[in-house]
Amino acid sequence: MRDFLPADKARRERVLAVIRDRYRAHGFDEIETPVVEEYDRLHAGMGGDNEKLAFNVMKRGLDADAIRGAADDPAALSDLGLRFDLTVPLARFYASHRAELPEVFRSIQIAPVWRAERPQKGRYRQFVQCDIDIIGDASARAEAELIVATLDTLDALGLEGGVVRINDRRALDAMLDMFGFAADERPGVLITVDKLDKIGPTGVVAELRERAATASAVDALETFLGREPVAVAEYGDAQIRAGLPAGVPDEVVAHLTGLGAAVRAARGAEQVPLVFDPFLVRGMGYYTGTIFELAHPSVSYSLGGGGRYDGMIGRFLGQDVPAVGFSIGFERIVDLVAAVTDAGAASVVLVHDRDVPVDELVALKAGLVARGSRVRLEQRKKNMKALLERAAADGYTSFASVSAGADVDALEIRPLG
Amino acid sequence: MRDFLPADKARRERVLAVIRDRYRAHGFDEIETPVVEEYDRLHAGMGGDNEKLAFNVMKRGLDADAIRGAADDPAALSDLGLRFDLTVPLARFYASHRAELPEVFRSIQIAPVWRAERPQKGRYRQFVQCDIDIIGDASARAEAELIVATLDTLDALGLEGGVVRINDRRALDAMLDMFGFAADERPGVLITVDKLDKIGPTGVVAELRERAATASAVDALETFLGREPVAVAEYGDAQIRAGLPAGVPDEVVAHLTGLGAAVRAARGAEQVPLVFDPFLVRGMGYYTGTIFELAHPSVSYSLGGGGRYDGMIGRFLGQDVPAVGFSIGFERIVDLVAAVTDAGAASVVLVHDRDVPVDELVALKAGLVARGSRVRLEQRKKNMKALLERAAADGYTSFASVSAGADVDALEIRPLG
Repeated sequence: MRDFLPADKARRERVLAVIRDRYRAHGFDEIETPVVEEYDRLHAGMGGDNEKLAFNVMKRGLDADAIRGAADDPAALSDLGLRFDLTVPLARFYASHRAELPEVFRSIQIAPVWRAERPQKGRYRQFVQCDIDIIGDASARAEAELIVATLDTLDALGLEGGVVRINDRRALDAMLDMFGFAADERPGVLITVDKLDKIGPTGVVAELRERAATASAVDALETFLGREPVAVAEYGDAQIRAGLPAGVPDEVVAHLTGLGAAVRAARGAEQVPLVFDPFLVRGMGYYTGTIFELAHPSVSYSLGGGGRYDGMIGRFLGQDVPAVGFSIGFERIVDLVAAVTDAGAASVVLVHDRDVPVDELVALKAGLVARGSRVRLEQRKKNMKALLERAAADGYTSFASVSAGADVDALEIRPLG
Repeated sequence: MRDFLPADKARRERVLAVIRDRYRAHGFDEIETPVVEEYDRLHAGMGGDNEKLAFNVMKRGLDADAIRGAADDPAALSDLGLRFDLTVPLARFYASHRAELPEVFRSIQIAPVWRAERPQKGRYRQFVQCDIDIIGDASARAEAELIVATLDTLDALGLEGGVVRINDRRALDAMLDMFGFAADERPGVLITVDKLDKIGPTGVVAELRERAATASAVDALETFLGREPVAVAEYGDAQIRAGLPAGVPDEVVAHLTGLGAAVRAARGAEQVPLVFDPFLVRGMGYYTGTIFELAHPSVSYSLGGGGRYDGMIGRFLGQDVPAVGFSIGFERIVDLVAAVTDAGAASVVLVHDRDVPVDELVALKAGLVARGSRVRLEQRKKNMKALLERAAADGYTSFASVSAGADVDALEIRPLG
């Protein structure tokens, strides 16, 4: 977990302001939930592997007997935990407040989550996620709104050229079914297929054989992976059909095709910024339909992703409600964004002699603030150069020297550096 | 702990934006620390009673033996905890990053803290504090900058008329010393004196006798409390001297007087918005000098407070650094602020027939967003009145009806409600 110093914090806040502004423009509304959720809710099987990474909060007032009694059941020591994602809290939130929300609810959540991962480069135990979700709309309109809002937000951050890789869990499932994988082995098969980018077709086939997946199904998959690629550049019906074995249900193909037409219409670009990836898996078990992942030409890793999870809210509400979400990884985005300039007020460092009375100093500062400036007081030092460089690095653009008896309207304000 | 729905969340964000903007104008810089700190740091005696209210985070991977072994020492089960204030994290932050910060460092922290309080009206277990602190300046300039920034922020929120009650721990200490309370009984005496507003002079004296404080000292205090009030309306030397027994060190009186002159000079008001309260205590043990509390005529409770804590950073750094802070209770402030209007973009609800194709809808929305609007798509319903009222309540100001084939430039956009 990290501290953020002023320059970093200001940069993060400016990037967040752009993201919030774009999401809001696209009709999403921000909500907030507490950082802790009930232990049982966080460990109900909806968080996948992230559940194991939860930071759990100890019950208050535990006595020695209670602790001893929990020796073989550490979960009994916890009643709360830090959220590991924003999806489980959203589902809980929606189930609690449905009556107060619009029928189609478009939410923004911009907030930290926590995972007790082993420390490694570029991974943090506290990090900010930016999620948009649409609850109550089963149509491809919802997916299209999410994708267009996300790409528009990247554009606004100067990260034009974002591409969304798309697949559909129903297509994946139909494909595995056609190859001959049994329903109960498919989750394990998907874990291996998910490594296709890393270990290639040969690696995937070898790993599936090693884990004794149905041999004829592995053969069928191998044949399919080894087929001649069909050259279909543009996202659309032809590309989608070329990526799938014949026989995947037409409605799934139509959903994916319709999504492409909608994104093309909204973006108005000749090249629709979508790529169909029939082997995109996305780890979470709760996805039920479209899944997507955000790529950008400047980096090899994904900047975010999401998908449709029509079953999850029903777990809380006892009644299924369609839902789809797109999450961007703020920590990855913020590192890519070139400096976002602060279009704020003029800023002045007031460098004062040691003998200027406090009341004069504070009045001069108040006078400049009232005139719209950001103001920092600094006592004159021998090393003025270092002092002014420091202020410039902190974003100040001008300075003035102040002696006793100075008049706020007569200050000579000079540019810094 | 609470969920915030869109209207509440938007209101909170707008109030926070005003607070941030004013604090920044006064030369403060925002920082951020992780929400969890090390257990030992949170329980080092710097958090007063709040330490007992900390939510502690369980160590990961505890086995049965480790849990059993901790039965009589629950602290051994935790290595982290949720922060209960922003002062302990700031002291840790400053000690870690001093070399990267300006010599006089003015920090903003706007962030949630957690306390496991018994649920009661108006108290939350997660709540936002807004702290400004000045580290590295021992002069009254620092106190004056904090007070002026705080009052300016209240003004900007439409809460003019804020008043800061002021005292100095050194004055309190000198007073108790003169009455004859022994040094080791003074912390307990202060706890009782702190109740003066609630239980009155008679109650304070009775409680001190009950807890067997030095009898002659209690008599001296009783005499002092029963003295004829001196009519001194204006904050300044006369008011301060009238509030204290003769003999309090001149330097303390001069510090308090100088602070008044500075605030008056900065605020330019005829009436300086300060009140000297010789029995203001503020609970925390770490205060070493000036202490203050923010009052507003519209409410009987305090909206914030702070003081000088010159010793605390030394606990982390091994070298004393002067520090003073002013914290406002965001949850209390936000309830007092009249609606802050969203000076944002135009906003339009696009009410569409069921048969408008998704690509047309998404393109219309994108077109309006590109023209600077915030846009929500809504499918036409039988009860259009409820739908439009809902949108108006969510902050939308206009709407347009859309049929298949609509042109974004020919939409008839009408005001809502």
